[in-house]
Amino acid sequence: MKTRDRILRTSLALFNEEGEAAQSAVDIANALEMSPGNLYYHFKGKDAIIRALYDGFEHEMRIILRGTRGKITSIEDNWIYNYIILEEIFDFRFFYRNLGELLARYPDLAMRFRTLLAQKRRTITDLLHDLKKSNVLFLDPPMQEVLTDQILSAMTFWLSMDLIEGQHGEPAALIHKTVFQIMALVAPHMGESGFSAMQAMTAYYETQTG
Amino acid sequence: MKTRDRILRTSLALFNEEGEAAQSAVDIANALEMSPGNLYYHFKGKDAIIRALYDGFEHEMRIILRGTRGKITSIEDNWIYNYIILEEIFDFRFFYRNLGELLARYPDLAMRFRTLLAQKRRTITDLLHDLKKSNVLFLDPPMQEVLTDQILSAMTFWLSMDLIEGQHGEPAALIHKTVFQIMALVAPHMGESGFSAMQAMTAYYETQTG
Repeated sequence: MKTRDRILRTSLALFNEEGEAAQSAVDIANALEMSPGNLYYHFKGKDAIIRALYDGFEHEMRIILRGTRGKITSIEDNWIYNYIILEEIFDFRFFYRNLGELLARYPDLAMRFRTLLAQKRRTITDLLHDLKKSNVLFLDPPMQEVLTDQILSAMTFWLSMDLIEGQHGEPAALIHKTVFQIMALVAPHMGESGFSAMQAMTAYYETQTG
Repeated sequence: MKTRDRILRTSLALFNEEGEAAQSAVDIANALEMSPGNLYYHFKGKDAIIRALYDGFEHEMRIILRGTRGKITSIEDNWIYNYIILEEIFDFRFFYRNLGELLARYPDLAMRFRTLLAQKRRTITDLLHDLKKSNVLFLDPPMQEVLTDQILSAMTFWLSMDLIEGQHGEPAALIHKTVFQIMALVAPHMGESGFSAMQAMTAYYETQTG
């Protein structure tokens, strides 16, 4: 692995496990058994590392958001797709846990995050549209707008909520719970098949979380 | 008005309008046309003001959360009650807009906020229970838990979402939109009457927000 990638991977692990605020560039260098000077040769401080990590997250998320067009035509597809998005967000959890503060500290990232949210909103809109066309979902336009807001908000703040409530659940359980919550937003608009899908999901969810 | 109350009222207005981070104790004293020494006689710095504002918010919110027991038995009651809660939160919006950062800075407030969230969760649970007993709402226990999480999360992060999306909508419109979103979470579980209530709310919402 190239040194630059090794620095990014270790920084991300430290930020996610110990919190970003608690880590200095020197801490990162120590964790890598590297001199601060060598670290500085690759990244001019912690800010540059955070921006590079954001680059990586944004790149992955854009691929995920683009990759669905016309492909989500069933409840099951939608379910799996939610896992993919939430797992990507979970990989970058130090950022989402402390979203307001980090966006205030990095106005350039706040601009980019806003653009990414807008793209996520378009993907959700397209996805609901596809599910309607496949006769899986039944929604009038005002309700579709509300549902889009609800899904976007749930996907954005699940890690903040977990942090504020101080539960720090086991990661897989937290992702399951959040996917279940998002599916539970959509299912009531899926008619009879939504009802039975929710029952199957409830059963699955209970085996996963005890 | 007593000087202490005047300081709190002016500080809250400044924090809400200009953002808390941008205001120092000296700015607050200037806005009050008061010497910093006189301000210091009442509050030992900005931290003490923020804690006193939180005391007031917590006190009001506890009254609101306690005041409903057994009284919310219709869709309309629930709708009005959501307005009352969101308007209280809106009065304290500087805090909610910057929730993660403020809770990290004041661990004592983070503890109290967590307790308040738990109380809010109990109130939502009781409220859904009452609506079920009145045959307005139809939910199995796992779905009720999910719905409780969804409502709690929507009530906690609506101001953060508005800030992050950079929309800064007109306050009344933002409150309307959020109440509508919360009612839209509940209505699909209200059978036929939920459907017609949502239509009435949609019509009302559209007259309020254009």
